[in-house]
Amino acid sequence: MPAAVGVDFGTESGRALLLDCASGEELAAHTVPYASGAIDRELPGTGERLPGDWALQDPDDWVSVLETGVPAVLEAAGVPANEVVGIGLDVTSCTVLPTRGDGTPLCKLDGWRERRHAWPKLWKHHAAQAVADRLTEVALERDEEFLGRYGGRISSEWYFPKLIEVWLEDREVYDACDEFIEATDWIVWWLTGVQRRQNCTAGYKALWSPLHGLPPNDYFRAAYPGFERPAEKLGESFAALGTCAGTLRPEVAARLGLPESVAVAVGNVDSFVSMPGAGVEQAGTYVMVVGTSICDMVVHAEEIRLPGITGVVKDGILPGVYGYEAGQVAAGDMLAWYVETLGSSYSELEEAAARLRPGETGLIALDWWNGNRSILGDAGVTGVIAGLTLQSSREEIYRALLEAIALGNRRVIENFAEHGFELSEIVACGGIAERSPLTMQLLADTSGLPVHVPASSEIPARGSALFGAVAGGAFDDIGSAIARTRPGTARTYRPDGGAKEVYAEVYAIYRELYDTLGRTQVELLHGLKQIRSEQRSRA
Amino acid sequence: MPAAVGVDFGTESGRALLLDCASGEELAAHTVPYASGAIDRELPGTGERLPGDWALQDPDDWVSVLETGVPAVLEAAGVPANEVVGIGLDVTSCTVLPTRGDGTPLCKLDGWRERRHAWPKLWKHHAAQAVADRLTEVALERDEEFLGRYGGRISSEWYFPKLIEVWLEDREVYDACDEFIEATDWIVWWLTGVQRRQNCTAGYKALWSPLHGLPPNDYFRAAYPGFERPAEKLGESFAALGTCAGTLRPEVAARLGLPESVAVAVGNVDSFVSMPGAGVEQAGTYVMVVGTSICDMVVHAEEIRLPGITGVVKDGILPGVYGYEAGQVAAGDMLAWYVETLGSSYSELEEAAARLRPGETGLIALDWWNGNRSILGDAGVTGVIAGLTLQSSREEIYRALLEAIALGNRRVIENFAEHGFELSEIVACGGIAERSPLTMQLLADTSGLPVHVPASSEIPARGSALFGAVAGGAFDDIGSAIARTRPGTARTYRPDGGAKEVYAEVYAIYRELYDTLGRTQVELLHGLKQIRSEQRSRA
Repeated sequence: MPAAVGVDFGTESGRALLLDCASGEELAAHTVPYASGAIDRELPGTGERLPGDWALQDPDDWVSVLETGVPAVLEAAGVPANEVVGIGLDVTSCTVLPTRGDGTPLCKLDGWRERRHAWPKLWKHHAAQAVADRLTEVALERDEEFLGRYGGRISSEWYFPKLIEVWLEDREVYDACDEFIEATDWIVWWLTGVQRRQNCTAGYKALWSPLHGLPPNDYFRAAYPGFERPAEKLGESFAALGTCAGTLRPEVAARLGLPESVAVAVGNVDSFVSMPGAGVEQAGTYVMVVGTSICDMVVHAEEIRLPGITGVVKDGILPGVYGYEAGQVAAGDMLAWYVETLGSSYSELEEAAARLRPGETGLIALDWWNGNRSILGDAGVTGVIAGLTLQSSREEIYRALLEAIALGNRRVIENFAEHGFELSEIVACGGIAERSPLTMQLLADTSGLPVHVPASSEIPARGSALFGAVAGGAFDDIGSAIARTRPGTARTYRPDGGAKEVYAEVYAIYRELYDTLGRTQVELLHGLKQIRSEQRSRA
Repeated sequence: MPAAVGVDFGTESGRALLLDCASGEELAAHTVPYASGAIDRELPGTGERLPGDWALQDPDDWVSVLETGVPAVLEAAGVPANEVVGIGLDVTSCTVLPTRGDGTPLCKLDGWRERRHAWPKLWKHHAAQAVADRLTEVALERDEEFLGRYGGRISSEWYFPKLIEVWLEDREVYDACDEFIEATDWIVWWLTGVQRRQNCTAGYKALWSPLHGLPPNDYFRAAYPGFERPAEKLGESFAALGTCAGTLRPEVAARLGLPESVAVAVGNVDSFVSMPGAGVEQAGTYVMVVGTSICDMVVHAEEIRLPGITGVVKDGILPGVYGYEAGQVAAGDMLAWYVETLGSSYSELEEAAARLRPGETGLIALDWWNGNRSILGDAGVTGVIAGLTLQSSREEIYRALLEAIALGNRRVIENFAEHGFELSEIVACGGIAERSPLTMQLLADTSGLPVHVPASSEIPARGSALFGAVAGGAFDDIGSAIARTRPGTARTYRPDGGAKEVYAEVYAIYRELYDTLGRTQVELLHGLKQIRSEQRSRA
């Protein structure tokens, strides 16, 4: 009975899973919280106050997930270590760090640890918005072909904005690092001693494609004279998903309690592994990972150019098809903000909000608490609640936030449909899919599509384990792995006719507010953010 | 030493004051909460759920303020009853009730008390918006001269929308009442046995002017065929402020512990009496009563027509000058909503919000929780908070609400300035003026004018006492009374140069949001409210 380990590295914690490759059964799982979490207030060690929009991580936290989590699942499952054939892993992305040529993170070295640009930048580090804007502007001016694969905009969360931010703001850090590498590839490197980057983040986050490679050097030169070798810290060779990167380094094998022979798959991303993890490989099924933020994925046999997505990458999610990614940048984060600001509880709010009728709140929210990813691609917009009255209750506002998630999703789905995608169902996983039936019902009522929630809490780790199993030879390819291990459906939410009708009315208003504050008068929210950052910098 | 009693009837309680007419000293004050408060959930006795936007009061609550409050101040001050020369009173407006010819409120009679239209409608009863809109529309079509005195719009809070609402929805109540009378006039009637209405509410709330009388009958007929005698329940004769309405009925005198000889001034309104109460009689001083809502007042020697005010009435505030009224419809109400929704405390929030810099919140709110009075005159708009992020704290949102009050006030002041008013200072009174130094500073920083807070917590009751004193002959006229009793200034808030500059930037954004959501795309907030009321009516 071969088994595989999948490790899913999130924003605040990591989770290890041991999967039975024959039955798809989850043998054991173990969560390890990060000691430093998402670092967005002050730099560890120095206490330096970080600017707004900054978010960092500590590589030690990733290592501790492996060192604690892997032995824990082996022990809990009582599975002999020699039955494990492979490890796969997924990390948030673009979470990226500068390292030396031997793989040492710059932030672990004396003389560098007190420099904030030496630390891993978390996916939600948004401080490079100006760089992203500049890169988009120059790509538009030069009519760069690649831009069409990214919905017409470059996000501040991606590789080059984050790299160029270092180049602009701390040239010594830039010069001192040999590699500027995705966390997922760095962890594979740490496990195997082999630096082997993969094509998924290269495609979705670093503007690379198998056909065209990276954007031309003179594009970067036009945007930032002097920044002329985009491949310098990135490389230009990227392995396909499911490829075996190598086997465990002896000292790592000892610390994880595994044989050195265990195969390690190339890295992957928490969102993308969820599609195979949820057992989905067909076009027409819209997969949502609804957690801290929302990631939406669809595959399609053809390459279709459409605005508002965050990327289309050949082989980027599953081999042989084009993988499309879109998303909403604050979901669980926004709800946590509300619950913490209010000092209330999720279950109380969910229960009270579920008793309200569609449209009864009189509220509409734009879920832009952390900017908008799809379809505006604008980190400079901020959240809005409209329709407040003296009767507005806390559960009404909570429901309006859940509705904002659902209405925002409808906008994304509508955009796909307008460009020829035929979507017939939603598969939703992630913490909110499991914990908030109301949100799932709202997704169904606003989109008009049935929403299926898989019968597993380990969707990303399952996906990673499958890639580990493929790397370790337990399956010929990821398609066979998916077919063999598909999880069942825990719950299906079907659109309610009456609710759908009311939400169509609400959506018409939502759409107008969205277009006004997100496009025609976007200077308004941008201006507010500008004043805020000026005043904070003076504080 | 003559003394006068002033009684101020608010939204949730009433307050009696005994004033020394020689020194202006406040001898004693006593608050009496209303047993029923503002009735906005269910009809007393029947438990019938009231529709949204409804707000009623119980006349017994006003009587109990007099019967408890007046003896209490006499006793507390130790002043012999025969030193009291007069009583003046002020009530919220337009708070209005149907009565029999003998003064009995319809809601006190068997067979009527279970009819919701038989009860006094509180100033903030907003259910007659459709009637107000229709009256405005027909006035515009017919180019009615009077409309210019009211900023171009008729408010749902006023006399005729509330009366016609009864006429439309419960004709039996309409037919059964002989009078539909302002609470302030009804209380004078109860005290004296004499029905003597005054020119202040007639002017500000019932479209009457000393020169033109009421709008023509055919205007009302054009709007509501069949509703053709606007004076039927109102009368057409209105006494000047400060006039003596009569003396105490014997049984009332006994219950109040006063001689029957005590003069009762004609009624007045809580906001308007605050101008003399604060010692203001000059043009150029902008008086704000900042409480549950905000009332703004200015006097001027000439009649100027300007949009966005709620009325200009000759002799309406002080004799001999034109009195202008404008306002913001939710202030203290909105803050109370926030504090209750959050379960926090005012003092904590005020303290934390005061530590923030201007513009630092990145938030802008439109304070339309209960519609907008000046300068949109639209009860159908609702509150908005824009600029929310995952870092937005509860004190940042609180500060944004205080800033919304201040920025909304700047819009009102700007409107006056654009029409030739030369304003040099603000005098602010009311609960928020006393309790929130931050709000006062924000009013100064956004308007650029110094804000003076008088050294008295009894401003409206002082004003009423002065009119009572005039009615009782202690002064020749209200001007002499003001000059003799003017309260000192407790605190002055001067604009801070740096803050003023930042708020000019914030205001530019505020103004754009205001115009977009309040005018050019107002269908958006109106639509939300429409959906809400449809869904609630189905619940």
